[in-house]
Amino acid sequence: MYSLLGICSVYGRAHRRALRILATLKCVPNERSRMSESGQQSVTFDTHTELEAGTRVRVETRDFTYVIDEPESLGGTNEGPNPVEYLLGALGGCLSIVGHAVAAEMDLDVESLAVDVDGELNPARFQGADVDSRAGYQQITASIQAEVTDAAGDPVDDETEREWLERTEDRCPVSDNLAAETPVDLSLE
Amino acid sequence: MYSLLGICSVYGRAHRRALRILATLKCVPNERSRMSESGQQSVTFDTHTELEAGTRVRVETRDFTYVIDEPESLGGTNEGPNPVEYLLGALGGCLSIVGHAVAAEMDLDVESLAVDVDGELNPARFQGADVDSRAGYQQITASIQAEVTDAAGDPVDDETEREWLERTEDRCPVSDNLAAETPVDLSLE
Repeated sequence: MYSLLGICSVYGRAHRRALRILATLKCVPNERSRMSESGQQSVTFDTHTELEAGTRVRVETRDFTYVIDEPESLGGTNEGPNPVEYLLGALGGCLSIVGHAVAAEMDLDVESLAVDVDGELNPARFQGADVDSRAGYQQITASIQAEVTDAAGDPVDDETEREWLERTEDRCPVSDNLAAETPVDLSLE
Repeated sequence: MYSLLGICSVYGRAHRRALRILATLKCVPNERSRMSESGQQSVTFDTHTELEAGTRVRVETRDFTYVIDEPESLGGTNEGPNPVEYLLGALGGCLSIVGHAVAAEMDLDVESLAVDVDGELNPARFQGADVDSRAGYQQITASIQAEVTDAAGDPVDDETEREWLERTEDRCPVSDNLAAETPVDLSLE
């Protein structure tokens, strides 16, 4: 693991400009934005997956493809992280990107931002055992290591740091989709 | 998009063997299994993320690394899918892997299995606007195209297919983590 100290800070100005672009959100990746009933602009994201063999799944989203698989110990061919690992990565990535955006709005710089995310699950239900235990993680823990500085380059005080963290959590889409119920509409074509 | 027809079926027997291994779950990727209070074996998964620059995040999980980024239209450098896209991929991958496992248990073969996953979100809260709208997806839609056959190689009837789908949804960890509340414990080290 290498330190990011000093790498991010030089991007501060460019970041703020990029984040202003982000805030305007004039176009979206898949060109499927529309006005919702409340008059807010909604954005649609989509992804296509194909089961290739065994537990190996090919994922396509915009111009990107990647592989989901299970490790050999879980009956797979270990060609990529598994779904519940990608779920943790999505949360860590989301907290990082939102954390950076929130810092810029608060006139702060993020010198470094790392997140350790873990979750524990009981595989009984996944395995088909008739138990009351839930299929997914019982809880997810995200531990953030951040170096946040003010406009003068000094580390921010604890209160500012807490405010930054609270805003970040509140506005992170992935955190919201996990912490609150998100209807999943499943259909067979 | 190429057809998977005929590719998966030849793996049927090997899959069933692999899925028996999966069912025993004797070891776990990060060697962090333990008995829970209820006497069930729990499995822990973990992931580490580092913000590299702007919206680009490097993710490490076991021996894998991948990149999360935002598209240029959202202020990023477009070096990878964004967090909410990975969230959809995790769901599609999970449904595929569990769907395949459930089919094997039901003595069925999955000839092909593709999932289109999409979700719509209102970026107002993510952007810091003071609105009541949630930060994440309001709903996620997963549309499955599957070709499932019985031991004789014939397509299964609608009832069998519906049972397969219900079991798959019920046992998919990612679907559970989205559809039901999952506490996210966030801390700053």
